[in-house]
Amino acid sequence: MNTAEYLIKKLEELGINDFFGLPGDYNFNILYAVENNPKTNWIGCTNELNAGYAADGYARQRGYGAIITTYGVGELSAINAIAGSFAENVPVISIVGVPATKYIENKTLVHHNLNEVRPYAFEEAHKSIVETTAFLNKGNIKSEIDRILSVFVKERRPVYIAIPSDIALEEISDEYVDYNWSSNSEVLEEVIDKIIKKISEASKPVILGDVLVKRFDAKLEFKEFAAKSGIPVTNFLMGNNLINSDYDKYLGMYYSSYRNPIARQYLEETDCLIAAGPVYSDLNAFGFNLPYNINSHIAIYGTHTYIEDVKYENIKMSDVLEGISQRIEYKEYEFEKPQIGYAGTTIPGGELTSEYIYPRLQEYLSENDIIIAETGIIPHGICQMKFPQNVEVHTQTLWGSIGWATPATLGVCIANPNSRVILVTGDGSHQLTAMEIGNMLRLGIKPVIIVLNNKGYTIERILSQNPDDSFNDIVNMNYSKFARIFDGEVWATKVATEDDFDKALKVTQIMNKLCYIEICTDELDMPELTREVMTNFKSGKNPVKSANQNYPDTKSITENHNYSIKFETHVHQSLKGLDE
Amino acid sequence: MNTAEYLIKKLEELGINDFFGLPGDYNFNILYAVENNPKTNWIGCTNELNAGYAADGYARQRGYGAIITTYGVGELSAINAIAGSFAENVPVISIVGVPATKYIENKTLVHHNLNEVRPYAFEEAHKSIVETTAFLNKGNIKSEIDRILSVFVKERRPVYIAIPSDIALEEISDEYVDYNWSSNSEVLEEVIDKIIKKISEASKPVILGDVLVKRFDAKLEFKEFAAKSGIPVTNFLMGNNLINSDYDKYLGMYYSSYRNPIARQYLEETDCLIAAGPVYSDLNAFGFNLPYNINSHIAIYGTHTYIEDVKYENIKMSDVLEGISQRIEYKEYEFEKPQIGYAGTTIPGGELTSEYIYPRLQEYLSENDIIIAETGIIPHGICQMKFPQNVEVHTQTLWGSIGWATPATLGVCIANPNSRVILVTGDGSHQLTAMEIGNMLRLGIKPVIIVLNNKGYTIERILSQNPDDSFNDIVNMNYSKFARIFDGEVWATKVATEDDFDKALKVTQIMNKLCYIEICTDELDMPELTREVMTNFKSGKNPVKSANQNYPDTKSITENHNYSIKFETHVHQSLKGLDE
Repeated sequence: MNTAEYLIKKLEELGINDFFGLPGDYNFNILYAVENNPKTNWIGCTNELNAGYAADGYARQRGYGAIITTYGVGELSAINAIAGSFAENVPVISIVGVPATKYIENKTLVHHNLNEVRPYAFEEAHKSIVETTAFLNKGNIKSEIDRILSVFVKERRPVYIAIPSDIALEEISDEYVDYNWSSNSEVLEEVIDKIIKKISEASKPVILGDVLVKRFDAKLEFKEFAAKSGIPVTNFLMGNNLINSDYDKYLGMYYSSYRNPIARQYLEETDCLIAAGPVYSDLNAFGFNLPYNINSHIAIYGTHTYIEDVKYENIKMSDVLEGISQRIEYKEYEFEKPQIGYAGTTIPGGELTSEYIYPRLQEYLSENDIIIAETGIIPHGICQMKFPQNVEVHTQTLWGSIGWATPATLGVCIANPNSRVILVTGDGSHQLTAMEIGNMLRLGIKPVIIVLNNKGYTIERILSQNPDDSFNDIVNMNYSKFARIFDGEVWATKVATEDDFDKALKVTQIMNKLCYIEICTDELDMPELTREVMTNFKSGKNPVKSANQNYPDTKSITENHNYSIKFETHVHQSLKGLDE
Repeated sequence: MNTAEYLIKKLEELGINDFFGLPGDYNFNILYAVENNPKTNWIGCTNELNAGYAADGYARQRGYGAIITTYGVGELSAINAIAGSFAENVPVISIVGVPATKYIENKTLVHHNLNEVRPYAFEEAHKSIVETTAFLNKGNIKSEIDRILSVFVKERRPVYIAIPSDIALEEISDEYVDYNWSSNSEVLEEVIDKIIKKISEASKPVILGDVLVKRFDAKLEFKEFAAKSGIPVTNFLMGNNLINSDYDKYLGMYYSSYRNPIARQYLEETDCLIAAGPVYSDLNAFGFNLPYNINSHIAIYGTHTYIEDVKYENIKMSDVLEGISQRIEYKEYEFEKPQIGYAGTTIPGGELTSEYIYPRLQEYLSENDIIIAETGIIPHGICQMKFPQNVEVHTQTLWGSIGWATPATLGVCIANPNSRVILVTGDGSHQLTAMEIGNMLRLGIKPVIIVLNNKGYTIERILSQNPDDSFNDIVNMNYSKFARIFDGEVWATKVATEDDFDKALKVTQIMNKLCYIEICTDELDMPELTREVMTNFKSGKNPVKSANQNYPDTKSITENHNYSIKFETHVHQSLKGLDE
């Protein structure tokens, strides 16, 4: 078994059956290993950024993902996708085929080099945006592969490996290696004790779920903890539908002051926050408006937990949650149940606007659907929905790289061929990466793609000085015609009225092919939530400041710099506008 | 005048009137400076990689180029383009709008950050692929801008500058700064003396021109030197048409053993090589087959010159060439004049193949045209042409990032609106970045675009184990239909015969709009030159080894590691195949 075959086999054992990327003469030997392994497939993408996004989508759905590119030109084209996976804790391994060892050692000026050959320059460029990197040579093959895969499995973040084309063919032994790690049992016991005690002493505990619960594969343990404890549950935006919308202890999503005062009040007044996998970022948390630091309550992360600013390391999120569930006593907490989702039933009539689009999509969703919402105004429409059981919602809210959603949809479809996958994207974002539709058609996968054509970067129109600033314009294109330029089976249409959108959605339910719907709205049409949030971001107005004036400053903490800013600064920063 | 306005003004003074990129909330203040300066324009692109390629094309034509992106997501998407500009000495400045200073200093988790905020991570990622970087703060604005622009002007390579959104608005003084540098006159005199002496003692001197002559703006001085000295001239591939095809001392291009034995023999047997701006890379020099190290003769680079392995620093290429021209004595050197260009006149008849395409394109070209050849098989067809006066040829042969050519064409058109610009690209490459056609149409620019549809990555088919390896397939699309999906004036057609290609080219001559021709050939059709070169690369056969057996090993040199490999190793490396 050669190096490439060993790596591919180990990744397949982690659940990666599909490898995304582009061929290049330095990575052929890795591609052969993918093609010759009966359990793995090569998924060629249009370009490397798209391949990276596709691998990211795959990993969000499947647990792990992989991209294979070529030296310099390929790997650097994908680096933004890898950084996004790092930001959002999506485990994608970036595998790069590089020139043979002799070229590396002699610094030979073969193609895809800088003019002064610096063979490690591109690995260097990755160091600040992945968890760890490896550059294989004859002496370190097995130890480096095993090291980076251990990190990959523990941290659930991107790792990088460069494989010279000759090293890919080196024969190595295939011994069993267990990449799993175990929680430190003493620390785990201590943490569970402390959390149980904290909860039992609390009068108003609340569970805040967020996206890292998904990333660290702890959804079941999270739900179990909620059910066993009876504690009310809320979530940040990226934690959408982590717990089902009609769960009776669900407080609805946390929107800061913008919506759902019940969840907001709970989070502000709690004497025991149990946060599972939170990402406390501006857009995910609708500003930085909590009157305390999340880590100074209980915050359970993938490999460590905070209790009152003390960090306990080497304990798995799933072990912590499971441990609490086993010992917690159920208690009934009284709270007013908020309205979840868009109310009423849609009746089509006029021109298409956000007021119809998202409620109609809410009706359209079925159990087990997967919905992917591109960064921008769309997640604000989606997040207010009520979701059927087991609907998975993917957004890239922290990293927020427009263009991500279209190739991510390819990856999600490959990862989960049995679910209906619905992409909702905007014209500005879609144009960045739209060519990936071609590979969806080539591969015969059949998502429902909804492209919101509002003639430019609508969210930027709100944030910039003037909605007419010409840099927010893009070229208009005929999107539904675009979908038909590729060889492959597609049903495509363009709609501008509620009636036609309603009909188009109905058609997708009987079409056994990729469906592509261009929906046209006014340039400045958007969910009211977006308008409120962005107007505040821009103007520096602070809608929650007065409500929070009674809260003291956050305790200062030592460990986590991200959250160590005083509350007043937080509020000021988050709402004073990002463009100042 | 604020920081952003100062930077834009200084760049405008260098000749940059057009700034490529995408808007983002952190870069608005920089975009306003572009829009408010009456001499500068904002050119919005489809995505950041494309914007980087466009800025690269612009800089190749205009001297300098600039891209403006947003923090993290934008800048990292463009980094491969910037690395390519670095590799090929194309001066592009990467300007990044980043969060306001307080977010940077407090490490606030605003969008486009890694989850653990590392504000300098993306600057870090650039450090190995640009000449220098700067991250502005209140105390360093003017000194850092002036420092990086001085480096930019001297080294003609990419530099990087991150501007927090508040710093962009800081008022600064606008004093005159001269970014130019002067040659060290003593060193210059010594070098000119030595070169004059070396040439006068030589019996068979030869001038080798290459692409860095263009980059360091020394074309006129190069031609003057050739004309004044009478020394025969050849060039590497990237130096295509540096000197006009019908110049009577032109030896034709150097193809190693593949073509033109006259140039090859001259370069092998010379006792005085004067290389101006050479890039001695595998694909640019058709292997590493010269029996000596170029720097151990005379090699004139942008800021330094080698004479017999001694490096003389701080002297400009143009000053060296001009100095020699002023003192050289004209001498007549005898040589057999090779056939330049494709012979004869084309007569259309059968199915379209490379044997017709490139000779027909040779006839199609006129004086002052600009032709852009995508990486892959196309430059092998183009480089064998005879070019009319002042035809500019752009390829990206060292970096070789497929997809570069389409957005680079946008940049070239913007840089030079008065020339006819012809792009020749392949389907595999075109798909990576094809959406940029939309912006060409939006902006009303009118290149002639020829897309070779040969159903996949043809050059990879030759290099990989089997031409049918499925990873070299791509989705087929209707390219000519694609060009018509955007709003804008386009003439598009699809041809598969010599007759139709001939007619289509004629039509472009009367069309005052963007012309887009899809040309269909067999999967494995390619210039014979490509087949020969790639077959040798793959098989490890060395067609020139026997001819060179008499040459001794290269002298060992100390300064330049790139070329310090022994000759035998070179030959072995270059031809033993890149995929081994």
